[in-house]
Amino acid sequence: MTTERERSANPPTISEVAAAAGVGRATAARTLGGYGYVSPELRERVLAAADRIGYRANALARSMSTGITHTLGVIVADIGNPFFAGVVRGISDASRERGFDTIVLSTHESLSEEIAAMNVLIDKRVDGVVVASAAVDRADVAHLSAAIEHGIPVVLIDREVSHLDLDAVVIDNREAAREAVESLIQVGHTRIGFVWGPTTEERPRTRRELLAAASKNLWTDAERLRGYLDALDDAGIPFDPELVMVGAKTEDHASRDVARMLTLPERATAIFCTETDAMTGTLRALRAARMSYPDDVSLIGFDDSSWAAVMDPPLTMIAQPMSELGETAASTLLALIDGKLTSRSRHTLETRLIARASVSAPQSR
Amino acid sequence: MTTERERSANPPTISEVAAAAGVGRATAARTLGGYGYVSPELRERVLAAADRIGYRANALARSMSTGITHTLGVIVADIGNPFFAGVVRGISDASRERGFDTIVLSTHESLSEEIAAMNVLIDKRVDGVVVASAAVDRADVAHLSAAIEHGIPVVLIDREVSHLDLDAVVIDNREAAREAVESLIQVGHTRIGFVWGPTTEERPRTRRELLAAASKNLWTDAERLRGYLDALDDAGIPFDPELVMVGAKTEDHASRDVARMLTLPERATAIFCTETDAMTGTLRALRAARMSYPDDVSLIGFDDSSWAAVMDPPLTMIAQPMSELGETAASTLLALIDGKLTSRSRHTLETRLIARASVSAPQSR
Repeated sequence: MTTERERSANPPTISEVAAAAGVGRATAARTLGGYGYVSPELRERVLAAADRIGYRANALARSMSTGITHTLGVIVADIGNPFFAGVVRGISDASRERGFDTIVLSTHESLSEEIAAMNVLIDKRVDGVVVASAAVDRADVAHLSAAIEHGIPVVLIDREVSHLDLDAVVIDNREAAREAVESLIQVGHTRIGFVWGPTTEERPRTRRELLAAASKNLWTDAERLRGYLDALDDAGIPFDPELVMVGAKTEDHASRDVARMLTLPERATAIFCTETDAMTGTLRALRAARMSYPDDVSLIGFDDSSWAAVMDPPLTMIAQPMSELGETAASTLLALIDGKLTSRSRHTLETRLIARASVSAPQSR
Repeated sequence: MTTERERSANPPTISEVAAAAGVGRATAARTLGGYGYVSPELRERVLAAADRIGYRANALARSMSTGITHTLGVIVADIGNPFFAGVVRGISDASRERGFDTIVLSTHESLSEEIAAMNVLIDKRVDGVVVASAAVDRADVAHLSAAIEHGIPVVLIDREVSHLDLDAVVIDNREAAREAVESLIQVGHTRIGFVWGPTTEERPRTRRELLAAASKNLWTDAERLRGYLDALDDAGIPFDPELVMVGAKTEDHASRDVARMLTLPERATAIFCTETDAMTGTLRALRAARMSYPDDVSLIGFDDSSWAAVMDPPLTMIAQPMSELGETAASTLLALIDGKLTSRSRHTLETRLIARASVSAPQSR
């Protein structure tokens, strides 16, 4: 929050431009904001005055002659998720540097809301769209195709959509999950819970059923589950369906399902959490069971935050490069808008496993 | 995340409407999305087919005859702040129920970015705007007046702007802060740190200087500081400028300034944190000083979160009604758009002090 500093630096106001140009404030506002009618003569005077006193014109004013609106649209599943908040900030920082404003719509992970959001952005004439899509496969993407048919480039972020040929900026979820689970195996864990898994009602009983259920989930979730299985396979640890949470992806349900995993005949000694809410749900289950980490249960989570670092003990987390994901998506989209990209690009950014103090060897029992 | 469930419920798609109407997908998309040209005859066929198979038309399509766009704009300081994320969700939930989409712009607490954001929203023809403004007083609000001049109603949220007569939805920050600090005094604390305070470079030495500095800050920050002083006054505890953080409002700076307060000759025995990042900064300072809460230092924070509840011990927090703030702002704005409000309204919503386990009596020394 730098309001004070900015205010003391005091950029020229519209009123000051109006005074310098000898016109009314409304005229200056219309000219500089790029809306409404202003006579060419007055417009010229306002722009000259703005230039003279150093008024920073906004993107809209600049766009009046180019025909593009200098606005990017962003569609995310849940703006309340700190991961998406970080990504959106990266997009808006990078696009602002290039003189583009960013407008954001949040869809609660609903495909129908995503379709409505895309229609809003088409109607609002954005120059391009970054979308973390709730679409699972090609059957769900008519709205993405519609945008492209309208000449609005689309870049996918966070999530790929199966068999859809669009530019995408993602992380390697499968490898990040594999690495995290491997680090648990390395210190001796073999009973490792996975929170959260597919949203099916019934618990898949076989590996094949599990993978089939996962493939109907979001790409990120399916990839993280594949990485978990990869790590078990590499170590020759048999997969146990009881250790994979299924059902609603909520903090409450995670808490209940982890409580179950902690009371199995051979209980979980480590939990891999694929989301922030999965981790807070897991921590609630531990407290209710009067267990502590890392002594009773080791924990690794996805998506680092300032809270994770101040927990006692601090939590080992997989950090996604949120800003960089956003910045890369913005620059890819701006290159598409400029017609500078001729072939599809796929950016896979690096994650980091931040080892803190929530992992230790399992207690001998 | 309910993608799977929604997908199995399977609302009719644009392609299915197109098939039912016997038109191309692009024609159906243009009709249902409310963009581009469609002949009246085809349009009629598409709408009839959509009605027949239960396609839920979006707001834009409905708006085509009314002239309004069924879009609300929201301007917030920082979408990455969980408080604003919660507020935005409340706004978008309430407006979606009424058939309005919500587009969001984030300004990094910068007044010039807020002005640019308002110009974007005017240009995008939103029907109304909810804004958590970085403006401190009347001198900063030409962009708000400009919106109203364009017939776009504006509702303030979270923050009032001095001497500006607009509808506002806020909490009673002063009373919430007074109550929190009073609860610390009641268990025996007299050395209570305030994090964070005014952004001045120099530490105000007197109460008068402090209040003058605060009045140049955001309304919320100034009110919280006044509530802190109220509680000290009520208890007859002298105000000590060394216990009020000044300067940049960042987690790092909070951590440094709390470290200073913990090493004063008469050190702070309790800290009142007015923001999430102020709390995480304070927790870092405690850890670096090898102090624990509540034994060495009592803590109360502003803005509850799921993390605060799973900390060990869990943190006592002031919870703001984020969803309700957003919903109330949306319904106020929609009433303004409908021309149903004739006089200004000011909604002050209740906060709740959630007592957990981060407050205890000061240790005898």
